[in-house]
Amino acid sequence: MTEPDRAVVAVCQVDGVAARVDRAVLRDAVDSAVARGARLVVLPELAACGGVLPSAEQARAAAEPIDGPTVALLAELSAEHGCVVVAGLAEAGEGAQVHNSAVVLDHGALVATYRKVHLWGAEKNAFEPGDRPPPVVRTSAGRVGVMVCYDLEFPEWVRLAAEAGAEVLAVPVNWPLRAEGDPQRPFEVVKAQAAAVTYRLNIAVADRCGVEAGIDWYGGSMVCDVDGNVVAGPACVHGPDLDHGPAAPTVLVAEVDLAAARDKRLGSFNDALADRRPELYG
Amino acid sequence: MTEPDRAVVAVCQVDGVAARVDRAVLRDAVDSAVARGARLVVLPELAACGGVLPSAEQARAAAEPIDGPTVALLAELSAEHGCVVVAGLAEAGEGAQVHNSAVVLDHGALVATYRKVHLWGAEKNAFEPGDRPPPVVRTSAGRVGVMVCYDLEFPEWVRLAAEAGAEVLAVPVNWPLRAEGDPQRPFEVVKAQAAAVTYRLNIAVADRCGVEAGIDWYGGSMVCDVDGNVVAGPACVHGPDLDHGPAAPTVLVAEVDLAAARDKRLGSFNDALADRRPELYG
Repeated sequence: MTEPDRAVVAVCQVDGVAARVDRAVLRDAVDSAVARGARLVVLPELAACGGVLPSAEQARAAAEPIDGPTVALLAELSAEHGCVVVAGLAEAGEGAQVHNSAVVLDHGALVATYRKVHLWGAEKNAFEPGDRPPPVVRTSAGRVGVMVCYDLEFPEWVRLAAEAGAEVLAVPVNWPLRAEGDPQRPFEVVKAQAAAVTYRLNIAVADRCGVEAGIDWYGGSMVCDVDGNVVAGPACVHGPDLDHGPAAPTVLVAEVDLAAARDKRLGSFNDALADRRPELYG
Repeated sequence: MTEPDRAVVAVCQVDGVAARVDRAVLRDAVDSAVARGARLVVLPELAACGGVLPSAEQARAAAEPIDGPTVALLAELSAEHGCVVVAGLAEAGEGAQVHNSAVVLDHGALVATYRKVHLWGAEKNAFEPGDRPPPVVRTSAGRVGVMVCYDLEFPEWVRLAAEAGAEVLAVPVNWPLRAEGDPQRPFEVVKAQAAAVTYRLNIAVADRCGVEAGIDWYGGSMVCDVDGNVVAGPACVHGPDLDHGPAAPTVLVAEVDLAAARDKRLGSFNDALADRRPELYG
């Protein structure tokens, strides 16, 4: 397998409640992404079930094993299209534990699984956090790292993926729209941009859309390059009065420079990773 | 000394070459900031000398000791106005060593010194890097942390300041304008916003202006709140063709919420510092 220098990436913003009722929503999104040239297709966190799972009972009801029907469908799509698919799911783990997980499939093969380490809000009541670093795997669409939503807000986590060689970080998320702050550039987007440029990797975020249990999902699916520029999205740019209505399903496609992510140099004197002084970081 | 809950902060964008010729430039900037209500006044990196010092000889020629004329002037201004002043200088250290340093003065007293740890570009030939964490000191304008320019691009460095209790991070910088990227929101600004919201502290950046040795300084002086919102600046917003001419001297003033920086909670389940999993960060 040669190392590709560029890859076309798609982030599919889907309505997870609709996908729970009819998994064809996921199939349609992936088909559409591939038809537009994507070789790496990212779906949201908890892509095929509810995104609001505030209790252990609700998480267990939504959970399925890694060899369950959602991953089987994703594997089928990945095999059929000969592409890489990344998506989130509620994973039934050991005993009664449920994890907020993500999988990476390449040409139909499951090549990585990950359990979200940093849990947000009432998820702490519902999911067991993971304790393994973000996996980075060599795929047909470049070296892909994966983490889930709030994980991306911890710079150390992105740094681990960069050090492990990630050229593109695929991040299934569920970002809630909030009334405060800048609705056109919420802090999740700013943090994703900063993470990309700080560690010089591409970041592909697939967000949820629709309204669910009173939460209006932001719909901020986006692709960011190694310079921190948003090269696609954010999908749903709300007006200053948040008056553009709920975010809608969409597929965003962008070509990213994988080779750029392999070069951490900044001019002739600096290097994004080598300039760190970890011995001083306590 | 009671702990203030709010503070008016000023970032003074000055032309360091003009200030080298006539230090009244610094006096005028601080006077103007205080006249507008500021109690914490931040000046740029290497505020009273050239910002382009690519060799050890040039750095030594620009250097002065901490008890030299620049700090004496800053102490005089701080005493006269009963305020806090933060500024950068080329510090003559042990032997022939020169440091890219910053000082904090409160009511005329020198309360902290800092030597830049992360050096940018040809600075590596000119300055000896520091090896001490960013100081955080209790002042009449709140708990002030200090670091210099490129330091701010290392999330761990900001995290150390936040853990030490910084409510506002004063950051003298020299940001060069670059042709690539988004000139209205260069990555330095994005990283500053992300740092502020990730660790929930206010950040006050004082940038240089003017053109010097072929470098057009960006003039991106700004103040950012604990939610990552830019509440003042960036001072010089260049057009997409970088055609607004060189950045000009200016003073930006903003009131920041110090109490907000003492509370790292995010809703009832999360905490910006306590949610970290340092045992997993390698």
